[in-house]
Amino acid sequence: MTTGTIYGVGLGPGCQDLMSVRADRLIRQATHIAYFRKRGRRGHARGIVEGMLNRQVIELAMEYPVTTEIPFEDPRYNQCLAKFYADCVAQLSEISAAGEDVVVLCEGDPFFYGSFMHLYQRLRDKVPVAVVPGITGMSAAWTATRQPMTWGDDVMTVLMGTLPEEALVQRIAETDALVVMKIGRNLAKLRRALQRAGREDQAWLVEYAAMAEERVMPFSEAGDSAPYFSILLIHGNGRRP
Amino acid sequence: MTTGTIYGVGLGPGCQDLMSVRADRLIRQATHIAYFRKRGRRGHARGIVEGMLNRQVIELAMEYPVTTEIPFEDPRYNQCLAKFYADCVAQLSEISAAGEDVVVLCEGDPFFYGSFMHLYQRLRDKVPVAVVPGITGMSAAWTATRQPMTWGDDVMTVLMGTLPEEALVQRIAETDALVVMKIGRNLAKLRRALQRAGREDQAWLVEYAAMAEERVMPFSEAGDSAPYFSILLIHGNGRRP
Ligand SMILES: C[S@@+](CC[C@H](N)C(=O)[O-])C[C@H]1O[C@@H](n2cnc3c(N)ncnc32)[C@H](O)[C@@H]1O
Ligand SMILES: C[S@@+](CC[C@H](N)C(=O)[O-])C[C@H]1O[C@@H](n2cnc3c(N)ncnc32)[C@H](O)[C@@H]1O
Repeated sequence: MTTGTIYGVGLGPGCQDLMSVRADRLIRQATHIAYFRKRGRRGHARGIVEGMLNRQVIELAMEYPVTTEIPFEDPRYNQCLAKFYADCVAQLSEISAAGEDVVVLCEGDPFFYGSFMHLYQRLRDKVPVAVVPGITGMSAAWTATRQPMTWGDDVMTVLMGTLPEEALVQRIAETDALVVMKIGRNLAKLRRALQRAGREDQAWLVEYAAMAEERVMPFSEAGDSAPYFSILLIHGNGRRP
Repeated sequence: MTTGTIYGVGLGPGCQDLMSVRADRLIRQATHIAYFRKRGRRGHARGIVEGMLNRQVIELAMEYPVTTEIPFEDPRYNQCLAKFYADCVAQLSEISAAGEDVVVLCEGDPFFYGSFMHLYQRLRDKVPVAVVPGITGMSAAWTATRQPMTWGDDVMTVLMGTLPEEALVQRIAETDALVVMKIGRNLAKLRRALQRAGREDQAWLVEYAAMAEERVMPFSEAGDSAPYFSILLIHGNGRRP
């Protein structure tokens, strides 16, 4: 019996027809799928593929442990996550050992700030693993603004809203084009950083890019918080004929 | 009669099944397609869709003017390109005015350092234009290295090899994850910049990502030049459980 392959498949930004043809085919033919979700939720990645799955597909929902009581800095936070990833790896490896392929659903592009990477690093030397790239959330976000993102020799910087304010200010001041992801509760800090860098009026906020609830607004019109699926953008303005 | 829509369609990195389902459908159904190419060449974007087109499709090859005798800094260089873009815009607008849709083939993602952006800016207020995002060349490149690109709160910087050496050195030294595009004749300068930033041994070169000729190598093993389709990467190494 041959071992099965574990496919980390990029779903793109969240709209079925922005999935790649390869992803579409793998998902429709899958006998096993797996995806992360929060306990008690249906799972965002699972929602994206609704209606595409084979009726006999076997689903593995990998539910994040509840870590809300453990402070982020506490070593037990990482221990708890490490154990969770090890459990997921064991379950996926078992499917592969039984000779079956399994498709792990990944939002956007799997290797770009994705959770699947934690499984990939633990699986890659033991089991056949293949990765299918996807359209990133940021590509969908700048497309939604109806304005090109980067020109000529523009420098583009991608930042996480979780960075300290000082780091944000400096990075925002020094780049041409800017993408900020993981905004959520970091919105107020991000606004201060944009103001200190003198660039708040150039920034756009895109919520749920390419999804049914998509919204695009100048950052100055954003409220005090933003949903998990939000991206801040400043377009580049490079040399052009 | 209704006016037709001009679609800027991202083809992804260069492999047909890494196109989005939406792009695949638009291209197979197209009555008119358009694409840039160098005079005397078949056109790379056109090559990607070989075998997908309707037999009756009407093709518009937009051939770059030969600018090799005009120095890049000369104002006539920009005038020459501006006239070329204006001509393309006139031809595309004519198709739209005749009530026909036209699909413009774009490598990677159209709004990410793409040539279509020059047409888009001139068309957007006059004609219906729609853009379909695509998988970028850089996503295919980091997927090809079989190593995740960005973790946790890694900062990712995208640079063009056309930047001056001093700018490259500073940007390379200050980022976690790095992408450099437009390498070609800038390879020697880029090598010096990586060495001066002390990071040459962390860099990878990916040629023709996701295409038949794909090659991945440590940057130190690269020669004195690289093909047009080459991307340099340094992977991020952020905090993780
Ligand atoms: C853990 S990262 C995953 C990124 C993903 N792998 C990608 O390629 O886009 C999650 C962050 O991505 C951003 N994001 C991803 N898809 C998005 C979308 N469709 N609309 C808005 N934001 C999105 C949000 O900033 C979110 O906080
Ligand atoms: C004018 S830019 C266009 C970028 C494109 N719009 C994208 O989204 O990737 C051209 C540069 O993209 C990079 N590139 C695009 N696709 C590539 C691929 N499949 N393999 C390697 N490099 C690629 C190369 O660095 C090339 O010089």
